[in-house]
Amino acid sequence: MTDKVDLVQARAVVQQCLHARLQVKPPDEESEAEWVEINRGMVIYLCFFKGANEDIIPKMVSALMNIKLCENESGKYVSVLDLPGSVLVIPQATLGGKAKGKGMQYHGNVGKAEGRQLYSQFVSQCDKELASTAKSSEAGVVVRHGTYGNRQVLKLDTNGPYTHLMEF
Amino acid sequence: MTDKVDLVQARAVVQQCLHARLQVKPPDEESEAEWVEINRGMVIYLCFFKGANEDIIPKMVSALMNIKLCENESGKYVSVLDLPGSVLVIPQATLGGKAKGKGMQYHGNVGKAEGRQLYSQFVSQCDKELASTAKSSEAGVVVRHGTYGNRQVLKLDTNGPYTHLMEF
Repeated sequence: MTDKVDLVQARAVVQQCLHARLQVKPPDEESEAEWVEINRGMVIYLCFFKGANEDIIPKMVSALMNIKLCENESGKYVSVLDLPGSVLVIPQATLGGKAKGKGMQYHGNVGKAEGRQLYSQFVSQCDKELASTAKSSEAGVVVRHGTYGNRQVLKLDTNGPYTHLMEF
Repeated sequence: MTDKVDLVQARAVVQQCLHARLQVKPPDEESEAEWVEINRGMVIYLCFFKGANEDIIPKMVSALMNIKLCENESGKYVSVLDLPGSVLVIPQATLGGKAKGKGMQYHGNVGKAEGRQLYSQFVSQCDKELASTAKSSEAGVVVRHGTYGNRQVLKLDTNGPYTHLMEF
């Protein structure tokens, strides 16, 4: 029997935001923490599973950039490209967790080197997608992203997160 | 062939927070908006599917209150009961969405009346669980929750959301 769940290559949790701020470098003795931020737009928490292949990235980016998950000024849901809004991508390996007893296990997650590469491709293709859309590039919206492997210290301000799960 | 995905009765997305603030009544002509808030603890976004039965609630509450998803002062992951931390429950029907073309459909979601009842049972059993745990009741941690059917205007402050998906 084929178990559909095991064929999932990537999992994304998507929330809309009014403002989001993510730490990309923790403070150390010499410098303060560094942050990236976006205004109105979409936060994408992202996790890849074992067997994930770079072929999936264009499909994911196209689906996430074009799906109508962002509420515009008149209360209608449009895509982040049509809003136009910014995108904050957050690597979130914990999304691959499976409960075992009182703990979580992450045996299904892709390896670190591979995950880092897929993540980086995802971010750069989001960047291209926004840059190639007249509405987005004219509005000056941006793609920002967290540092793979870091703690993702996040501050999020929403008008309703409208949380969705998307698997690929 | 049994499709495991269709047997899911409930979906929860869980994040840890330092502070979370949720609007439970929008402003109107006569009064300002009303908010609930928690400090350190756990945010649970919750959605029920068709076929969800109240028998699942004790199992869900026990799993979510006891699983080690909260980082304590020494960087160790413990349950929200052991932290001890507060809990913010957010009804989030959008979590039941499935992409169809560029839109989302929610055909798998439980009906409103049933969903409201399951949600209310979930919240009250979380309440009982925290109240019956010495560590939690002594620390004065709380369960707060959004209003079912409302827009969930949320402000979230984290030290790393550590996002997990749990299905029941």
